[in-house]
Amino acid sequence: MKLWFDTDPGVDDALALALIARSPAFELVGLSTVFGNADVRTTTANALGLCALLGLDVPVHAGAAGPLQGSPRLAPEVHGGDGLGGHAASLPAPRRQAEQMPAAEAIIRAARKEPDLHLAAVGPFTNLAQALRLDPDLPQRLASVTLMGGAFGLHGQGGNVTPNAEANVFNDARAADEVFAAPWRRLHVVGLDATQRVRMPRAALAALADGDAVARLLHRAAMPYIDFYHRHYGQEVLVAHDAIALMPLLAPTTLQWRQGPVRVVEGGLAHGQTTQDWQRLGGADWRDLPEHAVAVDANAPAITELCLRAWLNQGERT
Amino acid sequence: MKLWFDTDPGVDDALALALIARSPAFELVGLSTVFGNADVRTTTANALGLCALLGLDVPVHAGAAGPLQGSPRLAPEVHGGDGLGGHAASLPAPRRQAEQMPAAEAIIRAARKEPDLHLAAVGPFTNLAQALRLDPDLPQRLASVTLMGGAFGLHGQGGNVTPNAEANVFNDARAADEVFAAPWRRLHVVGLDATQRVRMPRAALAALADGDAVARLLHRAAMPYIDFYHRHYGQEVLVAHDAIALMPLLAPTTLQWRQGPVRVVEGGLAHGQTTQDWQRLGGADWRDLPEHAVAVDANAPAITELCLRAWLNQGERT
Repeated sequence: MKLWFDTDPGVDDALALALIARSPAFELVGLSTVFGNADVRTTTANALGLCALLGLDVPVHAGAAGPLQGSPRLAPEVHGGDGLGGHAASLPAPRRQAEQMPAAEAIIRAARKEPDLHLAAVGPFTNLAQALRLDPDLPQRLASVTLMGGAFGLHGQGGNVTPNAEANVFNDARAADEVFAAPWRRLHVVGLDATQRVRMPRAALAALADGDAVARLLHRAAMPYIDFYHRHYGQEVLVAHDAIALMPLLAPTTLQWRQGPVRVVEGGLAHGQTTQDWQRLGGADWRDLPEHAVAVDANAPAITELCLRAWLNQGERT
Repeated sequence: MKLWFDTDPGVDDALALALIARSPAFELVGLSTVFGNADVRTTTANALGLCALLGLDVPVHAGAAGPLQGSPRLAPEVHGGDGLGGHAASLPAPRRQAEQMPAAEAIIRAARKEPDLHLAAVGPFTNLAQALRLDPDLPQRLASVTLMGGAFGLHGQGGNVTPNAEANVFNDARAADEVFAAPWRRLHVVGLDATQRVRMPRAALAALADGDAVARLLHRAAMPYIDFYHRHYGQEVLVAHDAIALMPLLAPTTLQWRQGPVRVVEGGLAHGQTTQDWQRLGGADWRDLPEHAVAVDANAPAITELCLRAWLNQGERT
């Protein structure tokens, strides 16, 4: 399965990229970076260093430094100022430089070149929205799009940056609304409703500390990230949002889905809130929108086992 | 327990009023009416006729004909044009007329006269918001306030008039936000997250058709209301929202609660949406707001049995 990965590393982005690198199902063809967990200069440097660490020899295209509207809200309190919990300096020297071509253009080119390309976007959706604006045929060219973003209120789950909003969508609500309005062949939305259901206990990650260089880096980067969750949610757990967002491609039966159009609130109290009209109540704001799949629950033990095997480089379960 | 009931009958308002009349725990001291399920002229006439049917000799004060801002959205598709599923003409002639004093003023007077007065509001909260504006001490005077309104996304529950909003809050989002911001001694919010969990099968209501005049009227009014649910939700069930909203007073252990401040979105895609900051994420929009209890689940069998016994006038379980 050929994959384009749009990312803002980010601790959980690093966990997702390791999962991609160590899953034989994926053939990564390119990376694009975006602001989000850190500024785009930092996330691009981290993407290049992570590729070196993981032995991924793919082009990296830097993308948007801020949202289509408004200003970015970075997350140093979650990911550290360097985006990797203070451990970015431990990454090996990059083997490549970032490409000249901007991310949005690179996505369009890749989709034209690879007829069965899947795209996963786990930062703010600015690059994808820019690509859509440049090429309205993009939705028909990509085999599927998978997004980490949104909070739909399942299981009493609210947002993570405001009571209403999840960080990726909050960071570019306009881009998200445009992406959700496009007629993708298949769009999977994996929001907090699903990712927060997969809470990997800190103790379960201990084996990473004795693993190879990749596992050890992931372990070190994850520790301050778990500390953040411990302070704010009272649980010593890893919530690997961006890695879980790969499950629609890697292990689709580990997630449960609900169909319906999706929209995003822009501005005011609920800025960045996602809503799915799964009841088909409709109304003027919802007319003619395409239906997408939103993840409403996750099989935490199965996803945890799958991720740990990949991060520990133990191969797939036989 | 002395009770003031603010209502817009309304099929489920009639079910709630019958529950009040037939529950020895309540001493109803007054009624106020509001637009909502039908226009306020209709809901006032229905309230007077229901009092005659139920033997309730209490003052009825007509209230707001529309919201603090915007225009009303009545619900003839749910409650019929007469508010009672086409059966308002079957009500007995009223024994009293509506009082001269408007609803908001009557609520203030009653709260000053009765030091332990509880208030339940099951229509748009316009009367209560007007009373708050007239008397900022009202929150400390009332023993408790119980509201039917809101949709907080639990159990995947969206709104019922838009994907985001429940009808009472949609109908006066400004009033609801002002009511949620006030420092009530105790405020219980019973939204769709709880009421939609109590689905009384049509078959369970058959006994009402053979009951007394009250039971027979409730049964006839409920049938087209159930038809509406059948068409829209695919289930032949009665969802007696306003009756379930009395449970905090009548049977508090039948509901489960979550604490935190509550706000309402005004305008735009999510107009009328309620959010509770139960995670205490805070931020500028949430500063210094009081915490309230929002119902997050309901014991459907217990509530169904309690309601049916009252509607059938079988007394309380011994």
